[in-house]
Amino acid sequence: MPSCAGIRSRQATVLAEPPPATQRWAVRIEYDGTAFVGWQRQTNGLSVQSVLEQAASRLTGGRTVQSVVAGRTDAGVHAAGQVAHLDLPDAMSRRLSVAGLRDALNFHMKPNLVVVTQAARVAADWNARFSAIRRCYRYRILNRAARPALAAGQVWHVRRPLDAEAMHEAARPLIGRHDFTSFRAASCQANSPWRTLDRLEVTRDGEVVTIAAEARSFLHHQVRNLAGTLKLVGEGSWQAAGVTEALAARDRARAGPTAPPDGLCLVAVGYPEDPFG
Amino acid sequence: MPSCAGIRSRQATVLAEPPPATQRWAVRIEYDGTAFVGWQRQTNGLSVQSVLEQAASRLTGGRTVQSVVAGRTDAGVHAAGQVAHLDLPDAMSRRLSVAGLRDALNFHMKPNLVVVTQAARVAADWNARFSAIRRCYRYRILNRAARPALAAGQVWHVRRPLDAEAMHEAARPLIGRHDFTSFRAASCQANSPWRTLDRLEVTRDGEVVTIAAEARSFLHHQVRNLAGTLKLVGEGSWQAAGVTEALAARDRARAGPTAPPDGLCLVAVGYPEDPFG
Repeated sequence: MPSCAGIRSRQATVLAEPPPATQRWAVRIEYDGTAFVGWQRQTNGLSVQSVLEQAASRLTGGRTVQSVVAGRTDAGVHAAGQVAHLDLPDAMSRRLSVAGLRDALNFHMKPNLVVVTQAARVAADWNARFSAIRRCYRYRILNRAARPALAAGQVWHVRRPLDAEAMHEAARPLIGRHDFTSFRAASCQANSPWRTLDRLEVTRDGEVVTIAAEARSFLHHQVRNLAGTLKLVGEGSWQAAGVTEALAARDRARAGPTAPPDGLCLVAVGYPEDPFG
Repeated sequence: MPSCAGIRSRQATVLAEPPPATQRWAVRIEYDGTAFVGWQRQTNGLSVQSVLEQAASRLTGGRTVQSVVAGRTDAGVHAAGQVAHLDLPDAMSRRLSVAGLRDALNFHMKPNLVVVTQAARVAADWNARFSAIRRCYRYRILNRAARPALAAGQVWHVRRPLDAEAMHEAARPLIGRHDFTSFRAASCQANSPWRTLDRLEVTRDGEVVTIAAEARSFLHHQVRNLAGTLKLVGEGSWQAAGVTEALAARDRARAGPTAPPDGLCLVAVGYPEDPFG
């Protein structure tokens, strides 16, 4: 029956309507994590992800925009060089320069302490999370008697004097490929506890002790658990051997406590080719 | 009449009662100026001075304590190394170690972003303001398209690219002894507009342009007016010669605008002998 065929045909056309063509964008993001529940959307408060996605959604006139991020930072953790990607309608993307997208997103993210510092067009198969080959974190400890004023919320305040050189020496055996079960949060969803730590260095500049950590990827809470353990060495509670023993034990209970989020900052994410060139 | 003499004698005794013996203390102070109306007590909001003096007052059981400060910073201006002095009762001072006074003041100043980083006993004629022979300020500009997130409130955000070397060159002729009328706030209460600028250097570290300024003392708004003028050179609106012409004009209207307080920080105060040793 031609009429039925006609109806089926119209339905098929509706069902088969292709999704709008999109352009994938990479964005480099800086944020002060203090006021956020973390990167990931949660029901209990504002996330960095929702601030970014809502800004992108406004740009597209209300379309839902989803982002993928290189490092899903926890509540209170900061970023100087987080990287995410999002897909925006082709037509809109053609009208926008990279500076134009950056500025438009920053306008809509006001007054939240989240900004896009750079934007770039990337290939449709480029992925902020899975294309990343390096994450660089910095953990800062303000090591003095007085609590922080100028750096409030951006450092871990440790009163007991820390021996940064002892921390640096104790960190050395952790570099390389290891089973980091002892430094992994119970909530960690990674398939394997094995990670390759490419860099773990401790330096002091006046009152600030900085731990620099680099790896292709990290386990959940890994940097904070490393920081909490190295602090025990720094204050003299642990010998350096305690750290390697904790690593060998493959038991979270054998390593030090989780350092607070305040001191942690995702400094940079590396890709085989820098999308921001 | 003996009775009258007796009365006079008692009155004289009362009048002559010596004030309680005091110990003068120097304190080095760090604060985030964002939430304050400035150093000095005002009727329109909370000052750093009142936070410090109220904390000291609580220590003394409610006695009024007055402080004298090296640099009376404006609203929104920060300090990493402000110095003040205050006189506390002798008896109390004898019971307190320098660490004890620091910690007690810090306890009572919570949760304000003001901390005493060091304390020291000083001679009764030592004066945080008048004994000072050097003030070191730092003015920081975040020079990029995106507004600040991690350094929000602690930098001046300038979008247009700045040539820090051109700013540095333009700053050079300002070093030395000059009539700084052109860089002095109308409200400045100093007797003379002459000041000796010992250092005025502009450097760039990535996105941050820093102006370092040192002098025995500064006029009101002098560093912010210098920053606002050098920024004009940095963005190419002014040639370097414009700065020396502005200086020579001795006319505030001839120099650049006052840079916002956010970028300014009193980094250190120098004395003939460091009271904090």
